[in-house]
Amino acid sequence: MTYFTEETSEQVVTARLDKCESERFKAVMSSAIKHLHGFVKDVQPTMDEWFAAIQFLTKTGQICDDKRQEWILASDTLGVSMLVDAINHRRPDGATENTVLGPFYVENRPHREMGDNICLDGKGAPCLVDGIVTDEQGVPLKGAVVDVWQTNDDGFYSVQQPDEQPDHNMRGVFTTAADGRYWFTTVKPLPYSIPTDGPVGKMLEMMGRHPMRPAHIHFIVSAPGYETLVTHIFVKGDPYLESDAVFGVKESLIVNFEHEGAGWKAKFPVKLKKKA
Amino acid sequence: MTYFTEETSEQVVTARLDKCESERFKAVMSSAIKHLHGFVKDVQPTMDEWFAAIQFLTKTGQICDDKRQEWILASDTLGVSMLVDAINHRRPDGATENTVLGPFYVENRPHREMGDNICLDGKGAPCLVDGIVTDEQGVPLKGAVVDVWQTNDDGFYSVQQPDEQPDHNMRGVFTTAADGRYWFTTVKPLPYSIPTDGPVGKMLEMMGRHPMRPAHIHFIVSAPGYETLVTHIFVKGDPYLESDAVFGVKESLIVNFEHEGAGWKAKFPVKLKKKA
Repeated sequence: MTYFTEETSEQVVTARLDKCESERFKAVMSSAIKHLHGFVKDVQPTMDEWFAAIQFLTKTGQICDDKRQEWILASDTLGVSMLVDAINHRRPDGATENTVLGPFYVENRPHREMGDNICLDGKGAPCLVDGIVTDEQGVPLKGAVVDVWQTNDDGFYSVQQPDEQPDHNMRGVFTTAADGRYWFTTVKPLPYSIPTDGPVGKMLEMMGRHPMRPAHIHFIVSAPGYETLVTHIFVKGDPYLESDAVFGVKESLIVNFEHEGAGWKAKFPVKLKKKA
Repeated sequence: MTYFTEETSEQVVTARLDKCESERFKAVMSSAIKHLHGFVKDVQPTMDEWFAAIQFLTKTGQICDDKRQEWILASDTLGVSMLVDAINHRRPDGATENTVLGPFYVENRPHREMGDNICLDGKGAPCLVDGIVTDEQGVPLKGAVVDVWQTNDDGFYSVQQPDEQPDHNMRGVFTTAADGRYWFTTVKPLPYSIPTDGPVGKMLEMMGRHPMRPAHIHFIVSAPGYETLVTHIFVKGDPYLESDAVFGVKESLIVNFEHEGAGWKAKFPVKLKKKA
């Protein structure tokens, strides 16, 4: 078994990990080698297919910059991000469920007064979102931080349009008082397309998939002593709920947005899980 | 099973291929999704490990340019290139065995006269390589093209040192006459390191692996009506034969380099497989 053959490929490559000092890295690479070789043996790629894969891998890195992360998009659209998120945030019954962070979160978001409007460009249908942050037993949490962001009415996050949108458009951070309540004004979110002009867009097209995400608002909710919750709320009735390009939808996160006067309102109560 | 869960992840993602028009692409992506999700479930990466993987994937593309192909290096060092090569070139007993092409092959190599010296920089121990190109039954092939390349005595291919080495140093193409024989002068090859200043070098280091390849000369041998053979010859006794960083060694390709006068000589008879 010294030299490589088609039959012994996995064992020969894995045996080279015998001097790996990190048990964890050894386990990760052993599994990577197992699945890589399993994949190649399953599909038996031609030389041209192998080279097409090399080109996909190369281009997916090369289109990345400080505002575009195509590999996260690849991970998202293949369900890997959701799977890693699920494995890392198994939540007991009762605590609010998490979903993927997505690539458009930014540091240094502005703190706002409760009730403030995060929509600074004046476009879209006004919407009041409110809720209460509690522990798993329903006891309100004071000082909980509710961090929200979404696309504007044109379907873009502010970081995607630094020149077109006002600074921090559609973003805000709110802190609860003793009653645990939060509320803010925004616009009703709309479905939008993930970027399709790169290798991942091409891959989706070849798979016969659309690039749409159902309308949603991102939340990160944190409080001292509790696990930080990264999640979205989705709009009930959205046509893409069952085919989200990044598989982010969970039934418990679908919220009924109701007409109220000229606008909309949505309720999202949040139950945080106590840290172990 | 509409929405994604940890348990149903593979099925939910695979189900999205229902509108894929290419049966082949559907099969390839189904297997990719199966193995990707299997890998993630095996290793249960932390969020930080997932992000380290995203960074590795990104950087491996970003270091590539028209002279450097880090993804081929990744494929080579994980045994994937050899496996794809083995699957595509299953050779019957008798025909000369193939091995990986490697990333340093170039187009437009110079045709040379039989016996010419491909070493244009005058460095290294002179070595005569000769052989005969035949079919599987040993019948000499006229007009067979023998295309060879190797590193110079400093351990670099000419494309890696466009300013330091003469044009087409250590490369040559020879055409056999009716007797099928070929011979050329070169220098005895030396072991060398694959590039280690990128993500793949870091990965090898973390795996506890060295980046060395045993000394070898690359060959592509072709003749009308026969399968083109892509292979190397390796130097018997080389210390890295059993730990080639890219798993390229096969027992039948190890050649005895013998002292002759002030230099060396090596024999490499080539048997080509008839096209199906």
